[in-house]
Amino acid sequence: MHVRSAFRGMRVSVIGGSSVPPETAAVAEELGERLANRGHTVVCGGLGGVMEAVCRGAREAGGETIGILPTDRRSDANPHVTVPIATGLGHARNALVVLNGDAAIAVDGSHGTLSEIGMALAHGRAVAGIDTHDVAGVESVDSPREAADYVERTVEVN
Amino acid sequence: MHVRSAFRGMRVSVIGGSSVPPETAAVAEELGERLANRGHTVVCGGLGGVMEAVCRGAREAGGETIGILPTDRRSDANPHVTVPIATGLGHARNALVVLNGDAAIAVDGSHGTLSEIGMALAHGRAVAGIDTHDVAGVESVDSPREAADYVERTVEVN
Amino acid sequence: MHVRSAFRGMRVSVIGGSSVPPETAAVAEELGERLANRGHTVVCGGLGGVMEAVCRGAREAGGETIGILPTDRRSDANPHVTVPIATGLGHARNALVVLNGDAAIAVDGSHGTLSEIGMALAHGRAVAGIDTHDVAGVESVDSPREAADYVERTVEVN
Amino acid sequence: MHVRSAFRGMRVSVIGGSSVPPETAAVAEELGERLANRGHTVVCGGLGGVMEAVCRGAREAGGETIGILPTDRRSDANPHVTVPIATGLGHARNALVVLNGDAAIAVDGSHGTLSEIGMALAHGRAVAGIDTHDVAGVESVDSPREAADYVERTVEVN
Repeated sequence: MHVRSAFRGMRVSVIGGSSVPPETAAVAEELGERLANRGHTVVCGGLGGVMEAVCRGAREAGGETIGILPTDRRSDANPHVTVPIATGLGHARNALVVLNGDAAIAVDGSHGTLSEIGMALAHGRAVAGIDTHDVAGVESVDSPREAADYVERTVEVN
Repeated sequence: MHVRSAFRGMRVSVIGGSSVPPETAAVAEELGERLANRGHTVVCGGLGGVMEAVCRGAREAGGETIGILPTDRRSDANPHVTVPIATGLGHARNALVVLNGDAAIAVDGSHGTLSEIGMALAHGRAVAGIDTHDVAGVESVDSPREAADYVERTVEVN
Repeated sequence: MHVRSAFRGMRVSVIGGSSVPPETAAVAEELGERLANRGHTVVCGGLGGVMEAVCRGAREAGGETIGILPTDRRSDANPHVTVPIATGLGHARNALVVLNGDAAIAVDGSHGTLSEIGMALAHGRAVAGIDTHDVAGVESVDSPREAADYVERTVEVN
Repeated sequence: MHVRSAFRGMRVSVIGGSSVPPETAAVAEELGERLANRGHTVVCGGLGGVMEAVCRGAREAGGETIGILPTDRRSDANPHVTVPIATGLGHARNALVVLNGDAAIAVDGSHGTLSEIGMALAHGRAVAGIDTHDVAGVESVDSPREAADYVERTVEVN
């Protein structure tokens, strides 16, 4: 087994609220499943809410999940993160979450998510949004499928 | 002379585009002057555009200016920064810019500014905005005076 | 396949010079092979020299390798890194390299390695050293096998 | 008053233990006083022990002191820091402490100090050491005066 090939497709940063209602979690979980089924790796902040739901969905489809944590303890990652990365950087780790994806998808989310959207755009990443901040540069979509379609169209997968 | 007392009032993070038209620079410069006249210290990203203009204005009024740079060279600071801080952190330094102010004022600005607005709100800072992103949590104001009034009202100065 | 189980054993941060003579590279390569054979994941800075050699050795034995890069481009990782993590933090990323291991092994190395040894000890990690800085707290060993034995003894694998 | 000129001379990063015996604190305090008397600004980690003592000495001589904190609260700075900079980066802030000085002086110190010595040397800074780690590249000196002399000789003050 060679993981680099298992990490086929691209990496997609999924950002969103750390505490969300069940219907939002369901959307994130479906998103994780779709991304994994298409061979993509999920990158996220490693904690709860959207982060946990998208990882759960990706794992159910056998995908990989990288969780870049604000704390200095890998054990703070949600149980569906396969590669936890501790940073100890607090909110500054948001920059790393979007830097490590080829594109980003935002689901819901509050201020932290807004900062990640800004960082993603500043780094030239395409960003799709489902029920999230309405800001210029974010492609508003209605479903996980459309979000996955959008980021695939905008990224050159090598 | 004891600088801590010179650093009276509060610290205000001023964020905005690194390349702006003259009329935007004029607004930022007036903002810097007003903040300095009220005894506040300007914190910014230390580079050009709004960052340089607000520092110029603050210096003209005898104020202090802290520039938190993305690079690892203090010499990259604009000439109106009195305390340059090199970080070498790239965009991740945006978190530090807003963390070091008691409140933030955004003037114009693009993706980097959006990330700073998100970070400021995530850290619980009040944010006033002049011709900037229209996002929930940012108080839209029409002038430097109103921006300064707003952040003064929302911060407990000790 | 569930990678978390593939990432059995522990994570070992391997630190050392980015440009080393062939005999040092051979030691690092053997170290990577031994660690992988024992089921451990290699964490390193992702670039050349000791970092590349230890990753090559680990890959030859089918192991996983996490490379935490100073730059903001995943493509800067050496070809034997299975999970590249871009940071854009420059030398400050050294803190993350040792934070993400349960223990550290230094091979040769200069100033950057010294900073990582200090960081590892500051974070309470056991550190074994082969031909590296002679500082208190580092267990000097003579071979990759002894280094692997030492870090295994000092870490509680769960 | 123009602070940039007040910040004449150079910036010297002073690193050392956060909890030290009175005689070590006395050395650090004398060092701060000497550096300030020569017109230099002290940069440090902003907390206790050597950091607090060197700031106290510098303030007694009317000097400026920049404290780059590991936490996200400026109020964590010791009372003798004139410019506290919050980072929220934890140990990773050590990189910023040495990056912001033109040279470094280590007094005593443990693992954190060792990491800063490594970072300082990696960034090409001259390092003088008083009763600190005996590592290649650090000029061992016997007194604050000798330490100040050494860093002045090795830095081109503009």
